[in-house]
Amino acid sequence: MTSRESALIDALRMIATHPAARGLADDAAVLPVEAGGLVLTHDMLVEGVHFLPDDPADSVAWKLVAVNMSDLAAKGAMPLGVLTGHGLGRDRDWDSLFVEGLADALRIFNVPLLGGDTVAMPAGAPVTLGLTAIGRAPECGAPSRSGAKAGDDLWVSGPLGDAGAGLAIRQGRMDGGLASLVTAYQRPQPNLPLGQALASLVSAMADVSDGLLIDARRIAEASGCGVAVQMDAVPLSDALMMVRPDSWETRIEATTAGDDYVLLFTAAPDRRQAIEAASSRHGGNARRIGCCTADRGFALSWRGGAVPLPARLGFEHG
Amino acid sequence: MTSRESALIDALRMIATHPAARGLADDAAVLPVEAGGLVLTHDMLVEGVHFLPDDPADSVAWKLVAVNMSDLAAKGAMPLGVLTGHGLGRDRDWDSLFVEGLADALRIFNVPLLGGDTVAMPAGAPVTLGLTAIGRAPECGAPSRSGAKAGDDLWVSGPLGDAGAGLAIRQGRMDGGLASLVTAYQRPQPNLPLGQALASLVSAMADVSDGLLIDARRIAEASGCGVAVQMDAVPLSDALMMVRPDSWETRIEATTAGDDYVLLFTAAPDRRQAIEAASSRHGGNARRIGCCTADRGFALSWRGGAVPLPARLGFEHG
Repeated sequence: MTSRESALIDALRMIATHPAARGLADDAAVLPVEAGGLVLTHDMLVEGVHFLPDDPADSVAWKLVAVNMSDLAAKGAMPLGVLTGHGLGRDRDWDSLFVEGLADALRIFNVPLLGGDTVAMPAGAPVTLGLTAIGRAPECGAPSRSGAKAGDDLWVSGPLGDAGAGLAIRQGRMDGGLASLVTAYQRPQPNLPLGQALASLVSAMADVSDGLLIDARRIAEASGCGVAVQMDAVPLSDALMMVRPDSWETRIEATTAGDDYVLLFTAAPDRRQAIEAASSRHGGNARRIGCCTADRGFALSWRGGAVPLPARLGFEHG
Repeated sequence: MTSRESALIDALRMIATHPAARGLADDAAVLPVEAGGLVLTHDMLVEGVHFLPDDPADSVAWKLVAVNMSDLAAKGAMPLGVLTGHGLGRDRDWDSLFVEGLADALRIFNVPLLGGDTVAMPAGAPVTLGLTAIGRAPECGAPSRSGAKAGDDLWVSGPLGDAGAGLAIRQGRMDGGLASLVTAYQRPQPNLPLGQALASLVSAMADVSDGLLIDARRIAEASGCGVAVQMDAVPLSDALMMVRPDSWETRIEATTAGDDYVLLFTAAPDRRQAIEAASSRHGGNARRIGCCTADRGFALSWRGGAVPLPARLGFEHG
């Protein structure tokens, strides 16, 4: 067997060294687990939808792993393994670079490849990738989106908008800008240890994948409360500030672009000190950016005054 | 949100009623498990590769679930849940029929939908589906592909070749034939209870997805032994016998076409009675079709004589 598919499977086999993977030679992986909660997530990336056709294959692999690790981080979970679904496109060089990036990501996130499927796609079909991540839920239970209460603070674990600016640079919609912005788009850095440390402190938690505003609204809707976001308090990076003025427009862009993969969470005010300690211990930069309200509304403020919601809160399905 | 993607997610939410699914409103599913082995598998189906563009959407959904249940059956596992990865193609009617078929399959296999991802695909892209199945390993441990020993019997749990004939009918390569042949291709029936009952009796087990001969060779290769298949002993259905002569060609076709999703396993000769009892108790039709050999060869016999291997043993990747 020297086909492309076999070559890719052979390359994957080299990195699937965990005993549960059974050398990728079996119908399924068999993973021993202790009793407790398992956290399961599956996210897909499609060429031309979730990544650009000329994004390097190793960064696509990184992103595939990272977006799923971000979901585990939001549940405070410890990764146990991943399964990949790989619809082949392109050529062997793309595959090789993809496997390199996959191996790199799995090593950095310290999670084993347990199995999956590799299939040929019809000619011309976009590269279509799926990844299932399995994690162990924290002992306190995995935080949900629906636990926020009126009076809770709304927090975010790091700066917003870098990935959106990086995409704008890659698409030629923005000139200049530091390489770190493109890196934020291509190689997001979910913070698993921070998610684990926060799990027992938060009332609700999610990751920012579709945009801060839409993800905040989803927490409020799931929790049956309202939310008020102080747009001034939303943290922006120095790199973003070098290419954008600190304006309302910049902040709307940063909070609706998505792809940030920071943690968005709510917690009772008496948790502030513990959250700040956990954040600085795990390399986060947690900031309070608003609060949960008893009404079911969604309010934005800017420079001390109420401002209307933008027409678009983030990436909506479809 | 009234987009197609949202409509599909809403429809999926109606069938994701297990508490672990968290109403598909969270970043991840949270599944409580007892300590023990978990069996994990992920198989993909791509339009034009694994199913025909005009296969009914409900049968595609059935097949997506069934091929993954077949992997669990081969490990003797009890299904705990599934996650779907759904690359949208076609139109809303297709989606609706797909969800109907998915709900039907999940009900029949008694397995909850826990989560997944639904993404838009670029125009013209083939429908691309993935499914991750999670199961509980049997207490005796999940059989592997690599446990066969010289002297073991080689068994198959049901007739071969119906699905291949069904595909030939659907592609217009074969005239006539009972509807049951097309059903075998479109709606395979993996036998989970039989897999569970066999787990403690077998030395190695796999499902027949790519063709009996290639799957038998994979067991032998993984186990470091050889295998001899009596082609006369391979069970063929009455439906197949109505459209094909009982010839060498028919048997080669039936054992290389794949998509049968019956169980292929090896076991010590002293297990014969127990295997036959388990098979008849669980609606199987287990037949001994050969044995494992000390040499590492792959031998076929037909009407008492050795015969050469065909050029192609089954579906090879790529």
